[in-house]
Amino acid sequence: MKLVSYQHLDQPGWGLVTDAGLVPLHSASYPTLLSALQAGQLDAIAAQARAPALPLAGIRFLPVIPAPGKIFCVGHNYEEHRIETARDETRHPLLFLRVAESQTAHLQPIRRPAESTELDYEGEIAVVIGKAGRRIRAEDAWAHVAGYSAYNDGSIRDWQRHSMQFTAGKNFSGTGAFGPWLVTRGEIADGCELTLQTRLNGQVMQHSSTAAMIFPIPVLMAYISTFTTLQPGDVIVTGTPGGVGAKRHPAVWMKPGDLVEVEVSQVGVLANTIAAECV
Amino acid sequence: MKLVSYQHLDQPGWGLVTDAGLVPLHSASYPTLLSALQAGQLDAIAAQARAPALPLAGIRFLPVIPAPGKIFCVGHNYEEHRIETARDETRHPLLFLRVAESQTAHLQPIRRPAESTELDYEGEIAVVIGKAGRRIRAEDAWAHVAGYSAYNDGSIRDWQRHSMQFTAGKNFSGTGAFGPWLVTRGEIADGCELTLQTRLNGQVMQHSSTAAMIFPIPVLMAYISTFTTLQPGDVIVTGTPGGVGAKRHPAVWMKPGDLVEVEVSQVGVLANTIAAECV
Repeated sequence: MKLVSYQHLDQPGWGLVTDAGLVPLHSASYPTLLSALQAGQLDAIAAQARAPALPLAGIRFLPVIPAPGKIFCVGHNYEEHRIETARDETRHPLLFLRVAESQTAHLQPIRRPAESTELDYEGEIAVVIGKAGRRIRAEDAWAHVAGYSAYNDGSIRDWQRHSMQFTAGKNFSGTGAFGPWLVTRGEIADGCELTLQTRLNGQVMQHSSTAAMIFPIPVLMAYISTFTTLQPGDVIVTGTPGGVGAKRHPAVWMKPGDLVEVEVSQVGVLANTIAAECV
Repeated sequence: MKLVSYQHLDQPGWGLVTDAGLVPLHSASYPTLLSALQAGQLDAIAAQARAPALPLAGIRFLPVIPAPGKIFCVGHNYEEHRIETARDETRHPLLFLRVAESQTAHLQPIRRPAESTELDYEGEIAVVIGKAGRRIRAEDAWAHVAGYSAYNDGSIRDWQRHSMQFTAGKNFSGTGAFGPWLVTRGEIADGCELTLQTRLNGQVMQHSSTAAMIFPIPVLMAYISTFTTLQPGDVIVTGTPGGVGAKRHPAVWMKPGDLVEVEVSQVGVLANTIAAECV
């Protein structure tokens, strides 16, 4: 299944993407995709999907999960990116957190704030948790996955370097694009290789696959769930490959009007234009 | 006013601490302290407080705000702690995030996980936001403060050093103690010096005051609100002074049975025992 969160006629909703369009699935009991995941009712609700469908062109996308309980981002999880950033060899997953308000959606702008011109892309594969777990063993991890999406972990590099912690540069409002939809685990065989490509104005800037991850998805889930309970709707943004703008010569920054796309095989293309934030 | 979040007879609630005991303030409209802050109704609700009061001894404390939208923690915000940790001079606030599930409450245990013995205290002053704001100017910041509390930013030091990002070591379940209550801004003159003391089994381990902060509270608020909107109920944990256990010779780790207290003048004493986590 492909599931989207969206707004239509100013009302938020969520639904199933079909060939005929979008079939709304929200109800008073399950107003959000998150609430359906938390209740473990996704399959049951989707089984009752009925036409009429809305044309996809008529909706405004929201982040796949607009308000996840937790958004864990992984740094330096591809060897070529670790080398380009001159980081020490990675012994454990490097994690930072995003707040929900830093997110934006498919076909919505990524916002460049007034405080910086150093807006960079980071194409990534997002994993959405479907079943709660603490101290999940890597070999059991797939059963806790609801599905996959694409993420652009938009970064304000000068603010990211303000201190040794990335928080500020990774949490500007409207910089983390999450979409276009959730492709549920049933569509993608567990552990199947997914390719990841980031394009800026049509030019390929990053290209890699899950096979090149230093810490594969099940290992990330085992590590994170050692210290916290992974809950339905929590998001793990699994890291970006080499080719970020900051490490090019000269550096490439995204500017207002640019189009950035993150394509994940078997998932789809997350597309955003860059807009200057109006202050 | 002193406001607590608590459980009584298995029901969550919040209320006002008075000389006669606790006066419940929750209602269907405002089930949580967070909901009252979000609605800007704290003063109006508290003005209607009526007896009978519960004895404080009969409640189970919850974290002051059990589920804040955002918990920003500040690192190296006291010069003596920056020096003991051998960090570079601080040009900007160093920020990391805690997730709500990492919190615990006054008189509830701080949990030492099975994975580590390196459990350390960090006594801190917590600021709770009362009024939303983006790009708040430092000179306007006090008007956005709801009040103050104490925080013990309990840290698993070996996991904190797993990578250059602190996330894992700062987010073990049940390690961030927040309490005992919120003392509202009306009780403490804006910018008034607050002292901070951490005691382990009665011995003073940390002692400093807001006057020694590298970045004072209004500057922290201005910085954070540059990249994100500070919302009612958001928490800023303002940093720990020198004297942490990890930098003593030999290192001092908290063990099951220990009592750790964080006292903030004009606020009160946050007390926790250490318990081994049962896995």
